Amino acid sequence: MNPSTCVKSEIIAVPDLPMFQRGDDLPGIIFERACAAGLAFVEHDVVVITQKVVSKVEGRAVRLSEVEPSPEAVELAAEVRKDPRFVELVLRESRGVVAMRPDLLVVETRQGIICANAGIDRSNVEQTGESEWLVLLPADPDASARAIQSRLESLSGIKLAVLIIDTLGRPFREGVIGMAIGVAGMDPLMDMRGQADLFGYVMERTIINRADEIAASASMLMGQTTARLPVVIVRGASYWPGAGSSRSISREPWKDMFRPQGYLRLGKA
Amino acid sequence: MNPSTCVKSEIIAVPDLPMFQRGDDLPGIIFERACAAGLAFVEHDVVVITQKVVSKVEGRAVRLSEVEPSPEAVELAAEVRKDPRFVELVLRESRGVVAMRPDLLVVETRQGIICANAGIDRSNVEQTGESEWLVLLPADPDASARAIQSRLESLSGIKLAVLIIDTLGRPFREGVIGMAIGVAGMDPLMDMRGQADLFGYVMERTIINRADEIAASASMLMGQTTARLPVVIVRGASYWPGAGSSRSISREPWKDMFRPQGYLRLGKA
Repeated sequence: MNPSTCVKSEIIAVPDLPMFQRGDDLPGIIFERACAAGLAFVEHDVVVITQKVVSKVEGRAVRLSEVEPSPEAVELAAEVRKDPRFVELVLRESRGVVAMRPDLLVVETRQGIICANAGIDRSNVEQTGESEWLVLLPADPDASARAIQSRLESLSGIKLAVLIIDTLGRPFREGVIGMAIGVAGMDPLMDMRGQADLFGYVMERTIINRADEIAASASMLMGQTTARLPVVIVRGASYWPGAGSSRSISREPWKDMFRPQGYLRLGKA
Repeated sequence: MNPSTCVKSEIIAVPDLPMFQRGDDLPGIIFERACAAGLAFVEHDVVVITQKVVSKVEGRAVRLSEVEPSPEAVELAAEVRKDPRFVELVLRESRGVVAMRPDLLVVETRQGIICANAGIDRSNVEQTGESEWLVLLPADPDASARAIQSRLESLSGIKLAVLIIDTLGRPFREGVIGMAIGVAGMDPLMDMRGQADLFGYVMERTIINRADEIAASASMLMGQTTARLPVVIVRGASYWPGAGSSRSISREPWKDMFRPQGYLRLGKA
């Protein structure tokens, strides 16, 4: 690296995106609007997309009135003081309940993500008719990311990575931040073990979650309410290209000291 | 917001910084090198500084051979299979041990941060003589951030925010990411509760940790080994200016479901 050159990264929101609907050609629209705004893709760009629009396009919206709660959901709903139909949806999307208390239900989702309410919510979802619409996480966010990556690469002729992100809470620290839940085209982790530091000391344990750092930087621009910037290009970030998968982000339960040991696993894989 | 304008943020490393030494004028050098590189500060810039250089300048380096381990440290060191002198340092910097197992010691630091080894390490620390030098976290990272902010503001005449960051691990997810441990000039949290979404739905609970998102975006550029980019300017991020403090990031123990209930508190505040 030339020490006199400014090292720089840019976070650029793709402008003028529509309200996405089920069945929309998400990568096609992203590519078209990026080009229209003069944002030609550059090798190694990371295209970061909020989970909500991926789920909408994939038809992962559910009408609350059409959900029939199981006895298990009714019981749990009383404990956490939530709508039994909502709890039913959360349980359907989960492998197990990790922690709960009134007003909070933390689960491990089918995708292996530990988060509140299995990532299900109703914000920024158009409400039509009398019953509430809720949006689930994409069924397989890595597959969604790969499909979008492949389409964007063939449209642009440029090698890209794609992240699907959501804003998630964490133990110990207040406030949600953007994190990667679907990964394509990059190794989410940069394993620096064995590399030498400034003084030749070989680092023993540093593994950087670069996907989550990129997710947080994109989230910084997306906003949460009326900004409507669901797609952000992160340009100039260093990462290791590769097939990649969000699975390598989820810590194995046996390695995790903060996962309650006897937590409720539901009767399914 | 004009929907046809590209919303954009820039992450820019300040180039040509020296190896910082105890007593160096950190903000003075940052300002000088930023100006020399043509990086005039802009209103609302966030100057993000890695903890390691703040600690070095503040003289927070300790020679391992000069540490006398207490009996408590010797006992704990056997359990976690670490050097008793290292464990002694960790305990001195901590309010309590949150979790431990062989090779891992997670504590709540005096600053209220939950992290491995109280943030103490030896990477990127010049080693002189026979004994190892270790670097502690700044004693009061908020105070360090405020002092740097005040100096940079008076040098530049521009309103800025300052974050001191470290790369920390998290439950459930592999890999460290940059997080804010010292805050000045901004509210680390953006409390969106009560604001309306795209469809007028009032959000009930979203609080965004914007400081941690900015920290992660800066960390993306800093690298961990030989890049030597300890200071990064984040330009164009939206945040709420204010006095700010990292204390509002630490979740109260009684609100945290993942803090072991009977964890070892050391006999000090």
